[in-house]
Amino acid sequence: MTDPAPGEASSSPASVVALTFDVFGTVVDWRSSIVREGWRLSERHGFGVDWTQFADEWRAGYAPAMQRVRSGELPWTTIDALHRMILDELLRKFAIDCLSASEIDHLNRAWHRLDPWPDALTGLNRLRARYILATLSNGNMSLLVNMAKHAGLPWDCVLSAELCRLYKPDARVYEMAARLLGLAPEQMMMVAAHVNDLEGARNAGFRTAFVSRPLEHGPRGHVETPPRGSVDIIATDLIDLAEKLAA
Amino acid sequence: MTDPAPGEASSSPASVVALTFDVFGTVVDWRSSIVREGWRLSERHGFGVDWTQFADEWRAGYAPAMQRVRSGELPWTTIDALHRMILDELLRKFAIDCLSASEIDHLNRAWHRLDPWPDALTGLNRLRARYILATLSNGNMSLLVNMAKHAGLPWDCVLSAELCRLYKPDARVYEMAARLLGLAPEQMMMVAAHVNDLEGARNAGFRTAFVSRPLEHGPRGHVETPPRGSVDIIATDLIDLAEKLAA
Repeated sequence: MTDPAPGEASSSPASVVALTFDVFGTVVDWRSSIVREGWRLSERHGFGVDWTQFADEWRAGYAPAMQRVRSGELPWTTIDALHRMILDELLRKFAIDCLSASEIDHLNRAWHRLDPWPDALTGLNRLRARYILATLSNGNMSLLVNMAKHAGLPWDCVLSAELCRLYKPDARVYEMAARLLGLAPEQMMMVAAHVNDLEGARNAGFRTAFVSRPLEHGPRGHVETPPRGSVDIIATDLIDLAEKLAA
Repeated sequence: MTDPAPGEASSSPASVVALTFDVFGTVVDWRSSIVREGWRLSERHGFGVDWTQFADEWRAGYAPAMQRVRSGELPWTTIDALHRMILDELLRKFAIDCLSASEIDHLNRAWHRLDPWPDALTGLNRLRARYILATLSNGNMSLLVNMAKHAGLPWDCVLSAELCRLYKPDARVYEMAARLLGLAPEQMMMVAAHVNDLEGARNAGFRTAFVSRPLEHGPRGHVETPPRGSVDIIATDLIDLAEKLAA
Protein backbone atom coordinates (compact mmCIF):
# COMPACT_ATOMS: atom_id res chain seq x y z
CA MET A 1 0.00 0.00 0.00
CA THR A 2 1.44 3.39 -0.97
CA ASP A 3 0.91 6.56 1.05
CA PRO A 4 -2.46 8.23 0.55
CA ALA A 5 -2.46 10.80 -2.25
CA PRO A 6 -3.79 14.29 -1.49
CA GLY A 7 -7.55 13.96 -1.27
CA GLU A 8 -7.43 10.38 -0.03
CA ALA A 9 -8.56 9.45 3.45
CA SER A 10 -6.47 6.90 5.31
CA SER A 11 -9.13 4.26 5.94
CA SER A 12 -8.44 0.82 4.49
CA PRO A 13 -10.93 -0.67 2.03
CA ALA A 14 -10.25 -4.24 3.27
CA SER A 15 -13.91 -4.81 4.08
CA VAL A 16 -15.09 -4.07 0.54
CA VAL A 17 -16.93 -6.88 -1.28
CA ALA A 18 -18.72 -5.04 -4.09
CA LEU A 19 -17.83 -2.07 -6.24
CA THR A 20 -20.65 0.06 -7.65
CA PHE A 21 -19.84 2.20 -10.67
CA ASP A 22 -21.09 5.44 -11.98
CA VAL A 23 -21.23 4.91 -15.73
CA PHE A 24 -21.58 8.13 -17.80
CA GLY A 25 -18.15 9.75 -17.73
CA THR A 26 -16.62 7.26 -15.30
CA VAL A 27 -16.73 4.09 -17.42
CA VAL A 28 -17.83 5.36 -20.83
CA ASP A 29 -16.79 8.43 -22.81
CA TRP A 30 -20.19 9.90 -23.63
CA ARG A 31 -18.85 13.00 -25.35
CA SER A 32 -16.75 11.35 -28.08
CA SER A 33 -19.43 8.71 -28.65
CA ILE A 34 -22.26 11.23 -29.10
CA VAL A 35 -20.12 13.41 -31.36
CA ARG A 36 -19.25 10.42 -33.53
CA GLU A 37 -22.90 9.41 -33.91
CA GLY A 38 -23.78 13.01 -34.75
CA TRP A 39 -21.19 13.20 -37.50
CA ARG A 40 -22.55 10.01 -39.04
CA LEU A 41 -25.99 11.62 -39.26
CA SER A 42 -24.50 14.82 -40.69
CA GLU A 43 -22.65 12.90 -43.37
CA ARG A 44 -25.72 10.90 -44.32
CA HIS A 45 -27.90 13.99 -44.71
CA GLY A 46 -25.24 16.52 -45.71
CA PHE A 47 -25.75 19.12 -42.98
CA GLY A 48 -23.19 20.77 -40.70
CA VAL A 49 -23.57 21.01 -36.92
CA ASP A 50 -21.04 21.59 -34.16
CA TRP A 51 -21.60 18.18 -32.62
CA THR A 52 -19.24 18.81 -29.71
CA GLN A 53 -21.41 21.76 -28.71
CA PHE A 54 -24.51 19.66 -29.33
CA ALA A 55 -23.17 16.83 -27.11
CA ASP A 56 -22.16 19.25 -24.36
CA GLU A 57 -25.59 20.92 -24.36
CA TRP A 58 -27.34 17.54 -24.37
CA ARG A 59 -25.35 16.48 -21.34
CA ALA A 60 -25.77 19.89 -19.69
CA GLY A 61 -29.54 19.52 -19.92
CA TYR A 62 -29.47 16.35 -17.87
CA ALA A 63 -29.00 17.76 -14.35
CA PRO A 64 -31.77 20.41 -14.71
CA ALA A 65 -34.10 17.76 -16.18
CA MET A 66 -33.51 15.46 -13.18
CA GLN A 67 -34.12 18.44 -10.93
CA ARG A 68 -37.57 18.87 -12.47
CA VAL A 69 -38.35 15.30 -11.38
CA ARG A 70 -36.84 15.76 -7.92
CA SER A 71 -38.90 18.90 -7.37
CA GLY A 72 -42.11 17.13 -8.34
CA GLU A 73 -42.65 19.29 -11.46
CA LEU A 74 -42.41 16.05 -13.49
CA PRO A 75 -43.48 12.57 -12.35
CA TRP A 76 -40.87 9.79 -12.27
CA THR A 77 -39.16 9.85 -15.67
CA THR A 78 -36.43 7.57 -17.02
CA ILE A 79 -33.18 9.02 -18.33
CA ASP A 80 -34.16 7.81 -21.81
CA ALA A 81 -37.24 10.02 -21.62
CA LEU A 82 -35.29 12.96 -20.16
CA HIS A 83 -32.68 12.60 -22.92
CA ARG A 84 -35.48 12.69 -25.46
CA MET A 85 -37.03 15.86 -24.00
CA ILE A 86 -33.65 17.59 -24.19
CA LEU A 87 -32.96 16.20 -27.66
CA ASP A 88 -36.25 17.53 -29.02
CA GLU A 89 -35.33 21.01 -27.79
CA LEU A 90 -31.82 20.80 -29.23
CA LEU A 91 -33.03 19.65 -32.64
CA ARG A 92 -35.13 22.82 -32.76
CA LYS A 93 -32.32 25.02 -31.45
CA PHE A 94 -29.78 23.63 -33.92
CA ALA A 95 -32.40 23.77 -36.72
CA ILE A 96 -32.03 20.07 -37.53
CA ASP A 97 -35.31 19.22 -39.28
CA CYS A 98 -34.34 16.53 -41.78
CA LEU A 99 -34.39 13.51 -39.46
CA SER A 100 -37.11 10.87 -39.60
CA ALA A 101 -38.91 9.75 -36.45
CA SER A 102 -36.88 6.54 -36.40
CA GLU A 103 -33.61 8.46 -36.87
CA ILE A 104 -34.46 10.70 -33.92
CA ASP A 105 -35.30 7.65 -31.84
CA HIS A 106 -32.02 6.03 -32.90
CA LEU A 107 -30.08 9.20 -32.04
CA ASN A 108 -31.70 9.32 -28.60
CA ARG A 109 -30.50 5.78 -28.04
CA ALA A 110 -26.92 6.83 -28.83
CA TRP A 111 -26.63 6.83 -25.02
CA HIS A 112 -27.15 3.04 -25.17
CA ARG A 113 -24.13 2.76 -27.49
CA LEU A 114 -21.48 4.75 -25.64
CA ASP A 115 -17.94 3.44 -25.88
CA PRO A 116 -15.79 2.72 -22.82
CA TRP A 117 -12.70 4.74 -21.94
CA PRO A 118 -9.60 2.90 -23.24
CA ASP A 119 -8.68 1.52 -19.78
CA ALA A 120 -12.19 0.44 -18.79
CA LEU A 121 -12.43 -3.14 -20.04
CA THR A 122 -8.98 -4.12 -18.80
CA GLY A 123 -9.56 -2.46 -15.45
CA LEU A 124 -13.04 -3.93 -14.94
CA ASN A 125 -11.95 -7.42 -15.91
CA ARG A 126 -9.15 -7.29 -13.34
CA LEU A 127 -11.43 -5.90 -10.65
CA ARG A 128 -14.06 -8.53 -11.41
CA ALA A 129 -11.74 -11.33 -10.34
CA ARG A 130 -11.79 -9.96 -6.80
CA TYR A 131 -15.03 -7.99 -6.39
CA ILE A 132 -18.68 -8.04 -7.35
CA LEU A 133 -19.04 -5.33 -9.99
CA ALA A 134 -22.37 -3.52 -10.37
CA THR A 135 -23.45 -0.41 -12.16
CA LEU A 136 -25.13 2.21 -10.02
CA SER A 137 -26.20 4.82 -12.51
CA ASN A 138 -29.07 7.21 -12.98
CA GLY A 139 -29.36 5.67 -16.44
CA ASN A 140 -32.35 3.36 -16.76
CA MET A 141 -31.93 -0.40 -16.69
CA SER A 142 -32.48 -0.98 -20.41
CA LEU A 143 -29.95 1.71 -21.29
CA LEU A 144 -27.35 0.11 -19.01
CA VAL A 145 -28.06 -3.43 -20.24
CA ASN A 146 -27.87 -2.41 -23.90
CA MET A 147 -24.68 -0.42 -23.26
CA ALA A 148 -23.04 -3.38 -21.51
CA LYS A 149 -23.96 -5.61 -24.45
CA HIS A 150 -22.63 -3.02 -26.93
CA ALA A 151 -19.38 -2.35 -25.11
CA GLY A 152 -18.70 -5.73 -23.49
CA LEU A 153 -18.77 -4.33 -19.96
CA PRO A 154 -18.40 -7.29 -17.58
CA TRP A 155 -20.92 -6.38 -14.88
CA ASP A 156 -21.99 -9.00 -12.38
CA CYS A 157 -25.17 -7.04 -11.88
CA VAL A 158 -26.84 -4.03 -13.46
CA LEU A 159 -28.36 -1.71 -10.86
CA SER A 160 -30.01 1.60 -11.61
CA ALA A 161 -31.52 4.43 -9.63
CA GLU A 162 -34.62 3.55 -11.66
CA LEU A 163 -35.16 0.58 -9.32
CA CYS A 164 -36.12 2.95 -6.50
CA ARG A 165 -37.36 5.82 -8.71
CA LEU A 166 -34.96 8.31 -7.21
CA TYR A 167 -31.76 9.79 -8.63
CA LYS A 168 -28.27 9.81 -7.22
CA PRO A 169 -26.91 11.42 -5.10
CA ASP A 170 -29.95 10.64 -2.92
CA ALA A 171 -28.55 8.36 -0.19
CA ARG A 172 -31.49 5.98 -0.64
CA VAL A 173 -30.16 4.95 -4.07
CA TYR A 174 -26.89 3.71 -2.55
CA GLU A 175 -28.73 2.10 0.36
CA MET A 176 -30.90 0.20 -2.12
CA ALA A 177 -27.81 -1.14 -3.89
CA ALA A 178 -26.31 -2.44 -0.64
CA ARG A 179 -29.62 -4.03 0.36
CA LEU A 180 -30.08 -5.76 -3.01
CA LEU A 181 -26.54 -7.15 -2.85
CA GLY A 182 -27.10 -8.30 0.73
CA LEU A 183 -24.15 -6.26 1.98
CA ALA A 184 -23.49 -3.69 4.68
CA PRO A 185 -22.65 -0.16 3.45
CA GLU A 186 -19.02 -0.55 4.55
CA GLN A 187 -18.73 -3.58 2.25
CA MET A 188 -19.61 -1.35 -0.71
CA MET A 189 -17.33 1.03 -2.61
CA MET A 190 -18.69 3.61 -5.03
CA VAL A 191 -16.45 4.35 -8.00
CA ALA A 192 -17.10 7.65 -9.78
CA ALA A 193 -15.46 10.56 -11.57
CA HIS A 194 -17.88 12.98 -9.87
CA VAL A 195 -17.49 14.42 -6.39
CA ASN A 196 -21.23 14.81 -5.71
CA ASP A 197 -21.84 11.11 -6.48
CA LEU A 198 -19.12 10.09 -4.01
CA GLU A 199 -20.51 12.45 -1.38
CA GLY A 200 -23.92 10.79 -1.73
CA ALA A 201 -22.32 7.36 -1.43
CA ARG A 202 -20.33 8.40 1.63
CA ASN A 203 -23.54 9.70 3.21
CA ALA A 204 -24.92 6.17 2.83
CA GLY A 205 -21.83 4.68 4.52
CA PHE A 206 -20.04 3.48 1.36
CA ARG A 207 -16.31 3.54 0.80
CA THR A 208 -15.42 5.76 -2.15
CA ALA A 209 -13.00 5.75 -5.08
CA PHE A 210 -12.52 8.80 -7.26
CA VAL A 211 -11.44 8.09 -10.84
CA SER A 212 -9.98 11.05 -12.66
CA ARG A 213 -11.49 11.68 -16.10
CA PRO A 214 -9.94 15.00 -17.12
CA LEU A 215 -11.23 14.67 -20.69
CA GLU A 216 -14.87 13.94 -19.80
CA HIS A 217 -15.93 17.42 -20.93
CA GLY A 218 -13.30 17.72 -23.64
CA PRO A 219 -9.76 19.16 -23.69
CA ARG A 220 -10.88 22.53 -22.32
CA GLY A 221 -13.68 21.23 -20.10
CA HIS A 222 -14.19 21.31 -16.35
CA VAL A 223 -11.91 18.94 -14.43
CA GLU A 224 -13.14 17.61 -11.09
CA THR A 225 -10.87 17.26 -8.06
CA PRO A 226 -12.05 15.71 -4.79
CA PRO A 227 -11.61 17.84 -1.64
CA ARG A 228 -8.69 16.71 0.52
CA GLY A 229 -9.51 13.69 2.66
CA SER A 230 -12.96 13.23 1.12
CA VAL A 231 -12.45 9.87 -0.59
CA ASP A 232 -10.77 6.57 0.26
CA ILE A 233 -8.95 6.11 -3.02
CA ILE A 234 -7.95 8.34 -5.92
CA ALA A 235 -7.16 6.56 -9.17
CA THR A 236 -6.00 7.89 -12.53
CA ASP A 237 -8.13 5.32 -14.36
CA LEU A 238 -9.71 1.88 -13.80
CA ILE A 239 -6.43 0.00 -14.33
CA ASP A 240 -4.88 2.18 -11.64
CA LEU A 241 -7.90 1.42 -9.42
CA ALA A 242 -7.27 -2.30 -9.91
CA GLU A 243 -3.63 -1.76 -8.91
CA LYS A 244 -4.64 0.19 -5.82
CA LEU A 245 -7.17 -2.46 -4.79
CA ALA A 246 -4.59 -5.21 -5.48
CA ALA A 247 -6.96 -6.80 -8.00
CA MET B 1 -37.34 -24.75 -38.52
CA THR B 2 -38.57 -28.25 -37.71
CA ASP B 3 -42.22 -29.15 -37.15
CA PRO B 4 -43.56 -28.26 -33.72
CA ALA B 5 -43.17 -31.06 -31.18
CA PRO B 6 -46.25 -32.14 -29.20
CA GLY B 7 -46.93 -29.39 -26.69
CA GLU B 8 -45.47 -26.66 -28.88
CA ALA B 9 -47.65 -23.90 -30.30
CA SER B 10 -46.97 -22.84 -33.87
CA SER B 11 -46.18 -19.16 -33.29
CA SER B 12 -42.74 -18.03 -34.39
CA PRO B 13 -40.44 -16.45 -31.83
CA ALA B 14 -38.91 -14.09 -34.45
CA SER B 15 -39.82 -11.01 -32.43
CA VAL B 16 -37.93 -12.14 -29.34
CA VAL B 17 -35.11 -9.86 -28.12
CA ALA B 18 -34.60 -11.00 -24.53
CA LEU B 19 -34.77 -14.37 -22.81
CA THR B 20 -35.66 -14.47 -19.11
CA PHE B 21 -34.67 -17.59 -17.21
CA ASP B 22 -36.06 -19.40 -14.27
CA VAL B 23 -32.98 -20.47 -12.34
CA PHE B 24 -33.63 -23.15 -9.65
CA GLY B 25 -34.09 -26.40 -11.55
CA THR B 26 -33.95 -24.80 -15.01
CA VAL B 27 -30.34 -23.55 -15.04
CA VAL B 28 -28.90 -25.02 -11.86
CA ASP B 29 -29.23 -28.47 -10.30
CA TRP B 30 -30.25 -27.52 -6.77
CA ARG B 31 -30.74 -31.11 -5.57
CA SER B 32 -27.25 -32.49 -6.27
CA SER B 33 -25.64 -29.27 -5.06
CA ILE B 34 -27.48 -29.23 -1.72
CA VAL B 35 -26.83 -32.95 -1.17
CA ARG B 36 -23.11 -32.46 -1.83
CA GLU B 37 -22.89 -29.57 0.65
CA GLY B 38 -24.78 -31.65 3.20
CA TRP B 39 -22.39 -34.57 2.89
CA ARG B 40 -19.44 -32.26 3.45
CA LEU B 41 -21.00 -31.15 6.74
CA SER B 42 -21.75 -34.76 7.73
CA GLU B 43 -18.16 -35.80 7.06
CA ARG B 44 -16.74 -32.91 9.03
CA HIS B 45 -18.89 -33.62 12.07
CA GLY B 46 -19.31 -37.38 11.69
CA PHE B 47 -23.09 -37.64 11.62
CA GLY B 48 -25.35 -39.42 9.14
CA VAL B 49 -28.35 -37.83 7.46
CA ASP B 50 -30.28 -38.74 4.32
CA TRP B 51 -29.29 -35.56 2.52
CA THR B 52 -31.40 -36.33 -0.56
CA GLN B 53 -34.46 -36.43 1.67
CA PHE B 54 -33.22 -33.30 3.44
CA ALA B 55 -32.76 -31.46 0.12
CA ASP B 56 -36.16 -32.56 -1.16
CA GLU B 57 -37.90 -31.41 2.01
CA TRP B 58 -36.02 -28.11 1.97
CA ARG B 59 -37.19 -27.49 -1.59
CA ALA B 60 -40.70 -28.74 -0.82
CA GLY B 61 -41.01 -26.15 1.95
CA TYR B 62 -40.43 -23.32 -0.50
CA ALA B 63 -43.85 -23.12 -2.20
CA PRO B 64 -45.84 -23.18 1.08
CA ALA B 65 -43.49 -20.55 2.54
CA MET B 66 -44.08 -18.24 -0.45
CA GLN B 67 -47.79 -18.87 -0.04
CA ARG B 68 -47.60 -17.53 3.52
CA VAL B 69 -46.22 -14.27 2.06
CA ARG B 70 -48.77 -14.15 -0.75
CA SER B 71 -51.61 -14.63 1.72
CA GLY B 72 -50.34 -11.79 3.90
CA GLU B 73 -49.58 -14.07 6.86
CA LEU B 74 -45.93 -12.98 6.50
CA PRO B 75 -44.70 -9.58 5.28
CA TRP B 76 -42.46 -9.45 2.18
CA THR B 77 -39.67 -11.96 2.81
CA THR B 78 -36.67 -12.82 0.62
CA ILE B 79 -36.03 -16.38 -0.46
CA ASP B 80 -32.86 -16.36 1.67
CA ALA B 81 -35.04 -15.71 4.72
CA LEU B 82 -37.67 -18.28 3.67
CA HIS B 83 -34.90 -20.86 3.11
CA ARG B 84 -33.63 -20.11 6.59
CA MET B 85 -37.06 -20.55 8.21
CA ILE B 86 -37.42 -23.94 6.52
CA LEU B 87 -33.82 -24.90 7.36
CA ASP B 88 -34.29 -24.16 11.05
CA GLU B 89 -37.31 -26.51 11.10
CA LEU B 90 -35.44 -29.23 9.22
CA LEU B 91 -32.42 -29.08 11.53
CA ARG B 92 -34.80 -29.81 14.42
CA LYS B 93 -36.65 -32.51 12.49
CA PHE B 94 -33.44 -34.28 11.43
CA ALA B 95 -31.98 -33.79 14.94
CA ILE B 96 -28.91 -31.97 13.64
CA ASP B 97 -27.69 -30.01 16.65
CA CYS B 98 -23.92 -29.90 16.22
CA LEU B 99 -23.68 -26.98 13.77
CA SER B 100 -22.37 -23.57 14.79
CA ALA B 101 -24.30 -20.42 13.93
CA SER B 102 -21.86 -19.64 11.13
CA GLU B 103 -22.13 -23.20 9.76
CA ILE B 104 -25.92 -22.90 9.66
CA ASP B 105 -25.63 -19.55 7.93
CA HIS B 106 -23.17 -21.06 5.44
CA LEU B 107 -25.49 -24.03 4.82
CA ASN B 108 -28.40 -21.67 4.17
CA ARG B 109 -26.28 -19.95 1.56
CA ALA B 110 -25.70 -23.26 -0.22
CA TRP B 111 -28.45 -21.91 -2.51
CA HIS B 112 -25.97 -19.19 -3.57
CA ARG B 113 -23.51 -21.91 -4.63
CA LEU B 114 -25.65 -24.17 -6.78
CA ASP B 115 -23.95 -25.73 -9.79
CA PRO B 116 -25.31 -25.44 -13.32
CA TRP B 117 -26.69 -28.39 -15.26
CA PRO B 118 -23.94 -29.75 -17.57
CA ASP B 119 -25.41 -28.07 -20.69
CA ALA B 120 -26.11 -24.69 -19.09
CA LEU B 121 -22.90 -22.73 -19.67
CA THR B 122 -22.52 -23.85 -23.28
CA GLY B 123 -26.17 -23.19 -24.04
CA LEU B 124 -26.25 -19.79 -22.34
CA ASN B 125 -23.05 -18.63 -24.01
CA ARG B 126 -24.49 -19.50 -27.41
CA LEU B 127 -27.81 -17.83 -26.64
CA ARG B 128 -26.05 -14.73 -25.36
CA ALA B 129 -24.56 -14.01 -28.77
CA ARG B 130 -28.07 -13.43 -30.12
CA TYR B 131 -30.28 -12.44 -27.17
CA ILE B 132 -30.24 -10.41 -23.99
CA LEU B 133 -30.13 -12.98 -21.18
CA ALA B 134 -31.66 -12.14 -17.82
CA THR B 135 -32.58 -14.15 -14.79
CA LEU B 136 -36.18 -13.90 -13.67
CA SER B 137 -36.24 -15.87 -10.47
CA ASN B 138 -38.00 -15.74 -7.14
CA GLY B 139 -34.52 -15.96 -5.66
CA ASN B 140 -33.34 -12.65 -4.22
CA MET B 141 -30.87 -10.47 -6.09
CA SER B 142 -27.87 -11.23 -3.87
CA LEU B 143 -28.48 -14.97 -4.17
CA LEU B 144 -28.61 -14.70 -7.97
CA VAL B 145 -25.54 -12.46 -8.19
CA ASN B 146 -23.49 -14.72 -5.92
CA MET B 147 -24.66 -17.81 -7.83
CA ALA B 148 -23.69 -16.27 -11.17
CA LYS B 149 -20.26 -15.41 -9.79
CA HIS B 150 -19.88 -18.94 -8.35
CA ALA B 151 -21.02 -20.75 -11.48
CA GLY B 152 -19.87 -18.37 -14.22
CA LEU B 153 -23.41 -17.82 -15.53
CA PRO B 154 -23.15 -15.19 -18.30
CA TRP B 155 -26.21 -13.05 -17.53
CA ASP B 156 -26.54 -9.66 -19.18
CA CYS B 157 -28.80 -8.65 -16.34
CA VAL B 158 -29.91 -10.13 -13.03
CA LEU B 159 -33.62 -9.60 -12.40
CA SER B 160 -35.54 -10.96 -9.46
CA ALA B 161 -39.12 -11.02 -8.29
CA GLU B 162 -37.64 -9.23 -5.25
CA LEU B 163 -37.54 -6.04 -7.32
CA CYS B 164 -41.34 -5.81 -7.20
CA ARG B 165 -41.82 -7.74 -3.94
CA LEU B 166 -44.09 -10.31 -5.53
CA TYR B 167 -43.39 -13.90 -6.50
CA LYS B 168 -43.78 -15.63 -9.84
CA PRO B 169 -46.13 -16.70 -11.35
CA ASP B 170 -47.80 -13.34 -10.62
CA ALA B 171 -48.06 -11.68 -14.05
CA ARG B 172 -46.74 -8.43 -12.60
CA VAL B 173 -43.30 -9.99 -12.12
CA TYR B 174 -42.98 -10.72 -15.86
CA GLU B 175 -44.42 -7.30 -16.74
CA MET B 176 -41.78 -5.68 -14.55
CA ALA B 177 -39.02 -7.54 -16.39
CA ALA B 178 -40.27 -6.36 -19.79
CA ARG B 179 -40.61 -2.79 -18.55
CA LEU B 180 -37.09 -2.72 -17.05
CA LEU B 181 -35.63 -4.06 -20.30
CA GLY B 182 -37.62 -1.52 -22.32
CA LEU B 183 -39.29 -4.26 -24.34
CA ALA B 184 -42.83 -5.26 -25.27
CA PRO B 185 -44.07 -8.58 -23.81
CA GLU B 186 -43.92 -10.26 -27.23
CA GLN B 187 -40.20 -9.40 -27.39
CA MET B 188 -39.66 -11.46 -24.24
CA MET B 189 -39.36 -15.23 -23.93
CA MET B 190 -39.53 -16.98 -20.56
CA VAL B 191 -37.39 -20.11 -20.30
CA ALA B 192 -38.35 -22.53 -17.53
CA ALA B 193 -38.63 -26.19 -16.59
CA HIS B 194 -41.90 -25.50 -14.77
CA VAL B 195 -45.32 -25.27 -16.36
CA ASN B 196 -46.78 -22.82 -13.84
CA ASP B 197 -43.94 -20.37 -14.45
CA LEU B 198 -44.56 -20.47 -18.20
CA GLU B 199 -48.31 -20.05 -17.67
CA GLY B 200 -47.63 -16.90 -15.65
CA ALA B 201 -45.31 -15.59 -18.36
CA ARG B 202 -47.86 -16.33 -21.07
CA ASN B 203 -50.47 -14.45 -19.05
CA ALA B 204 -48.17 -11.44 -19.26
CA GLY B 205 -47.83 -11.81 -23.04
CA PHE B 206 -44.40 -13.46 -23.12
CA ARG B 207 -43.31 -16.15 -25.54
CA THR B 208 -42.41 -19.34 -23.68
CA ALA B 209 -39.79 -22.08 -23.87
CA PHE B 210 -40.08 -25.24 -21.80
CA VAL B 211 -36.78 -26.92 -20.92
CA SER B 212 -37.10 -30.51 -19.81
CA ARG B 213 -35.27 -31.32 -16.58
CA PRO B 214 -36.38 -34.87 -15.81
CA LEU B 215 -33.78 -35.23 -13.04
CA GLU B 216 -34.67 -32.05 -11.15
CA HIS B 217 -36.31 -34.06 -8.36
CA GLY B 218 -33.99 -37.06 -8.68
CA PRO B 219 -34.21 -40.29 -10.67
CA ARG B 220 -37.63 -41.20 -9.28
CA GLY B 221 -38.97 -37.66 -8.94
CA HIS B 222 -41.87 -35.87 -10.58
CA VAL B 223 -41.30 -35.06 -14.27
CA GLU B 224 -43.14 -32.04 -15.74
CA THR B 225 -44.69 -32.08 -19.19
CA PRO B 226 -46.32 -29.02 -20.73
CA PRO B 227 -49.92 -29.40 -21.90
CA ARG B 228 -50.25 -29.70 -25.68
CA GLY B 229 -49.98 -26.36 -27.46
CA SER B 230 -49.21 -24.46 -24.27
CA VAL B 231 -45.66 -23.30 -25.06
CA ASP B 232 -43.82 -21.92 -28.10
CA ILE B 233 -40.75 -24.13 -27.83
CA ILE B 234 -39.89 -27.37 -26.08
CA ALA B 235 -36.19 -28.05 -25.59
CA THR B 236 -34.38 -31.00 -24.08
CA ASP B 237 -31.74 -28.69 -22.55
CA LEU B 238 -30.22 -25.24 -23.07
CA ILE B 239 -28.00 -26.36 -25.95
CA ASP B 240 -31.09 -27.70 -27.69
CA LEU B 241 -32.81 -24.36 -26.98
CA ALA B 242 -29.89 -22.57 -28.67
CA GLU B 243 -30.30 -24.89 -31.68
CA LYS B 244 -34.03 -24.23 -31.85
CA LEU B 245 -33.53 -20.48 -31.60
CA ALA B 246 -30.76 -20.66 -34.23
CA ALA B 247 -28.32 -19.11 -31.76
